[in-house]
Amino acid sequence: MRTVRTVAALREALAPHRAAGQRIGLVPTMGALHEGHLSLVRAARADSDVVVVSVFVNPTQFDDPNDLAAYPRTEAADVALAAAAGADLVFAPEPAELYPRGYATTVAVTGPLAESLEGAQRGRAHFDGVATVVTKLLLAVAPDAAWFGAKDAQQVVVVRRVVADLGIPVRIEVGPTVRDADGLAMSSRNVRLGPADRTRALALSRALRAVQDALGGGADVPAARDAGLTELATEGIDPEYLALVDPDTLEPAEPGRPVLVLVAARVGPVRLIDTVTVTPDAPGAL
Amino acid sequence: MRTVRTVAALREALAPHRAAGQRIGLVPTMGALHEGHLSLVRAARADSDVVVVSVFVNPTQFDDPNDLAAYPRTEAADVALAAAAGADLVFAPEPAELYPRGYATTVAVTGPLAESLEGAQRGRAHFDGVATVVTKLLLAVAPDAAWFGAKDAQQVVVVRRVVADLGIPVRIEVGPTVRDADGLAMSSRNVRLGPADRTRALALSRALRAVQDALGGGADVPAARDAGLTELATEGIDPEYLALVDPDTLEPAEPGRPVLVLVAARVGPVRLIDTVTVTPDAPGAL
Repeated sequence: MRTVRTVAALREALAPHRAAGQRIGLVPTMGALHEGHLSLVRAARADSDVVVVSVFVNPTQFDDPNDLAAYPRTEAADVALAAAAGADLVFAPEPAELYPRGYATTVAVTGPLAESLEGAQRGRAHFDGVATVVTKLLLAVAPDAAWFGAKDAQQVVVVRRVVADLGIPVRIEVGPTVRDADGLAMSSRNVRLGPADRTRALALSRALRAVQDALGGGADVPAARDAGLTELATEGIDPEYLALVDPDTLEPAEPGRPVLVLVAARVGPVRLIDTVTVTPDAPGAL
Repeated sequence: MRTVRTVAALREALAPHRAAGQRIGLVPTMGALHEGHLSLVRAARADSDVVVVSVFVNPTQFDDPNDLAAYPRTEAADVALAAAAGADLVFAPEPAELYPRGYATTVAVTGPLAESLEGAQRGRAHFDGVATVVTKLLLAVAPDAAWFGAKDAQQVVVVRRVVADLGIPVRIEVGPTVRDADGLAMSSRNVRLGPADRTRALALSRALRAVQDALGGGADVPAARDAGLTELATEGIDPEYLALVDPDTLEPAEPGRPVLVLVAARVGPVRLIDTVTVTPDAPGAL
């Protein structure tokens, strides 16, 4: 298990594996690894000859400097956890390695995919930052496949769009959201929740389940959404959004199609997101 | 010699060569091939095992729909010329192959590199279009090296920036501007010049030579620029710009450094550009 800090060292480390025709898997992360990330590393391990985990808190995707400053950085623990889950190589560059002096290029996704929901709340620079760093990581590692978590549902849609549009030769895989036993979606930001806020935060997953149950019971989209809002209100949570949309286009959900349900809310000092996909014939288990 | 129209067919055609470790060269063009392009194809031929010429009139880099509509399209002749110059494969996609329905991704370069000179005249969408299509072509072909003409000097600077910033693993090579015997820089747009305008257009290369001679004779930047403007004025040409800048940054030229001289002017129905680089110790031969 090695940690490399430059694209040159990364490529050098991967060259013999690539030359031998081995399959390379990438799990891009911002560190502070939890079971959600580790499930992706294990999925990559099962599918790949060489597993790379990138650990990079990408400054360009943070709209809020305080959030960037407060984002947990736990590299030594991350390296140990990644190794235990089956990673072969950690790529942990400094910001100046990916964005040196004179850097001037942005990969931008236009339209509702990147400008609605998270894009509307955090500003369009957020997904520009995501699209740019993911493009750079995919070009640096040149993996056969890359794994992303379903929890960042809009990120997955944006990444799939960029990969298809630019023709980056990689398969995008999505791993299911991992939850604590009480339903809270795992997030690196959860460590900043105090005990009371952690209890309040459970209303997010309860709200998603309420939406799911309502849809499963035949409710229409507005009624299902109301069921979710009611659940959030029990903890006094007024969400930034609670949206029911098409999983591919993020346009308003249509009857008979799968529904992507997304919620974002500030709970105490932390902004949290959660999501579930509900399919008409086989409602997803939250 | 084959022509392929899809990225999938292109990759399939290149796969055995790549697997055999052969070096792949790319010459991206918008077709209407002239001796300038063909000199790049020959340079690629001398350096590569497999030479790909792309022929694609990229709609997203045209600021003027009339210019796009009038841009010459001569694919059958292009294929024959490319083959004679040593190309192995022509990649000639339709616009919908590179920009299918739902396409939403742009590679954008910010700052003076893309926003000055051509960027200021044609709008910033011009170099966004160039950066995006070049990125897509480089990812589709995955060449060891790609050849660009020095005449599109700002394009070269933008392409080098994007390749470095995104970390696209390719070497960018630049071939010298090819001129007619009377000095006119070859351009696919020259066919649209009538006889009188073609004579007037010679003032562009004369103006560059005047700037070069003035700098060689010890003139400072403003005086050298005036010498060029005087030459343009003999044909009544008021240029969109005549600029003396740093070849790497496009910032104002500084004493003791190479000077990139760029001119753009409308001559009759056609917008023309030309350029020369003057080095302090070894003034370039125009």
